[in-house]
Amino acid sequence: MKIKFTKMHGAGNDFVVIDGIHQSIQFTPAQWQAIAHRQFGIGADQMLLVERSALPGIDFKYRIMNADGNEVEHCGNGSRCFVRFVHDQGLTDKTTIKVETLSGILTLQLHEAGRVTVQMGVPRFTASDIPFDATGLSTTEVGNTTQYTHPQYADTPFCVASMGNPHAVIEVADVETASVQTIGPSLQALPNFPKSVNVGFMQVLDPHHVKLRVYERGAGETLACGTGACAAVVTGIQRGELQSPVQVQARGGILEIAWAGPGEQVAMTGPTANVFSGEFETDALFNNNFNNN
Amino acid sequence: MKIKFTKMHGAGNDFVVIDGIHQSIQFTPAQWQAIAHRQFGIGADQMLLVERSALPGIDFKYRIMNADGNEVEHCGNGSRCFVRFVHDQGLTDKTTIKVETLSGILTLQLHEAGRVTVQMGVPRFTASDIPFDATGLSTTEVGNTTQYTHPQYADTPFCVASMGNPHAVIEVADVETASVQTIGPSLQALPNFPKSVNVGFMQVLDPHHVKLRVYERGAGETLACGTGACAAVVTGIQRGELQSPVQVQARGGILEIAWAGPGEQVAMTGPTANVFSGEFETDALFNNNFNNN
Repeated sequence: MKIKFTKMHGAGNDFVVIDGIHQSIQFTPAQWQAIAHRQFGIGADQMLLVERSALPGIDFKYRIMNADGNEVEHCGNGSRCFVRFVHDQGLTDKTTIKVETLSGILTLQLHEAGRVTVQMGVPRFTASDIPFDATGLSTTEVGNTTQYTHPQYADTPFCVASMGNPHAVIEVADVETASVQTIGPSLQALPNFPKSVNVGFMQVLDPHHVKLRVYERGAGETLACGTGACAAVVTGIQRGELQSPVQVQARGGILEIAWAGPGEQVAMTGPTANVFSGEFETDALFNNNFNNN
Repeated sequence: MKIKFTKMHGAGNDFVVIDGIHQSIQFTPAQWQAIAHRQFGIGADQMLLVERSALPGIDFKYRIMNADGNEVEHCGNGSRCFVRFVHDQGLTDKTTIKVETLSGILTLQLHEAGRVTVQMGVPRFTASDIPFDATGLSTTEVGNTTQYTHPQYADTPFCVASMGNPHAVIEVADVETASVQTIGPSLQALPNFPKSVNVGFMQVLDPHHVKLRVYERGAGETLACGTGACAAVVTGIQRGELQSPVQVQARGGILEIAWAGPGEQVAMTGPTANVFSGEFETDALFNNNFNNN
């Protein structure tokens, strides 16, 4: 069976996007994993499968498969590519799209030049929500938030936030020379973060512009971490150093983060790109790893 | 401009193959690099560009671009994919194809099931040809060759050969448990190999069957190293433990190596696979890395 797809990326996070409305897609986790393989497959961080929703008033349902083949929840960069895809493919002419996901109903907004706004949820700062344990750390109040310092890493005090996943954000004078590869894994290993932590290194240029690098759990430094950009901006606003909206320059592109303050959702606007379109033969792609023969 | 391409792999080494006969391709090194990028481009180890040859009696010319955008010489896995491509695309119906490359004229043979035979050149064993300096190593004669032992790595004696690039081959009892990630870089760093070395770990199953893992210069362990398979087999034949032809099971697939003895070319036969076909818009793909905007 021949399957058509589009390869896209959203600020460096890349996706194989498949129309599951006009094509009948019933792949196993092992088959999704084969598609994601960089040599034997198409290659992608995740696969997005677009389907119709059975819910009234909801335009689409979309499913997200990780490179290991397993279905996962909401991904900010993927949601943007999904919106661009359904529009480019003529599956809808709406620019505000309601979509059913494993994380619930999302409302997504398509702007000019393929930029898309996604609601990223309400940030949380309570220690148990992150989860975070301040035992052994010294604290300083900065603006409306608390800055923590570990005695072993006295040069890199941090603030904490949860965007559904745990984040520590360090302000640095220059992101290019920041010790991302050493401080990142060191903070992740602290017993203060029982579920580890994503470590952001933020350079404030002015109240509306920052540069950011993020050392992620499991992945190391990535080109653009959507929740990391949200966490960095909300901690910067809480510190009194940033004002919404804030442009975040990550290695994979520029994300714009807007936040009205505690209890409100964070809105992330970012780019999407069509890289190429293609077609594969399932029999060929799912059986071309000669090592399995 | 829209460009059609085919994504292929030969035992795990992957290629974007482009018909430069029916499409006018004039890409800069930076543009080839953009095509090779795994997130922002199509993603490949190398790109193969198929053109007509101006030489009499030669069927095609093909050019090989590395992922860094620079044009390079002959690659065994790529040559196989080139032959499968010109046949599948209907550019020829010959099964023996003469092709002009930067490394000279190659004669390639297409068999059933997309398997292709490539002549890989004459192996050399002279120290200065490899290059190799035995200072400080103890030696043992084994069959028609010499086995070297470094005092610091006494458990892993090796033989040496050049297939145009330097190889050290270690015989191991079990490739799966071999210390590829530690012994590989250790031997590469020895002053005995002034231009470093590709380190092969070969498990002999019987005189016609081996398993092989190769730790390559610059790349680390790869799925299938064509010259590494040739070097392993010729040293095994020289040791008197193998008999031509030999099936080499690498992580990316099975390669068959035939060699008639010193002074003769090594013939490598291996698989090819079509992974998918696609089309990209040059304006989009060459300008989609938002960090450059």
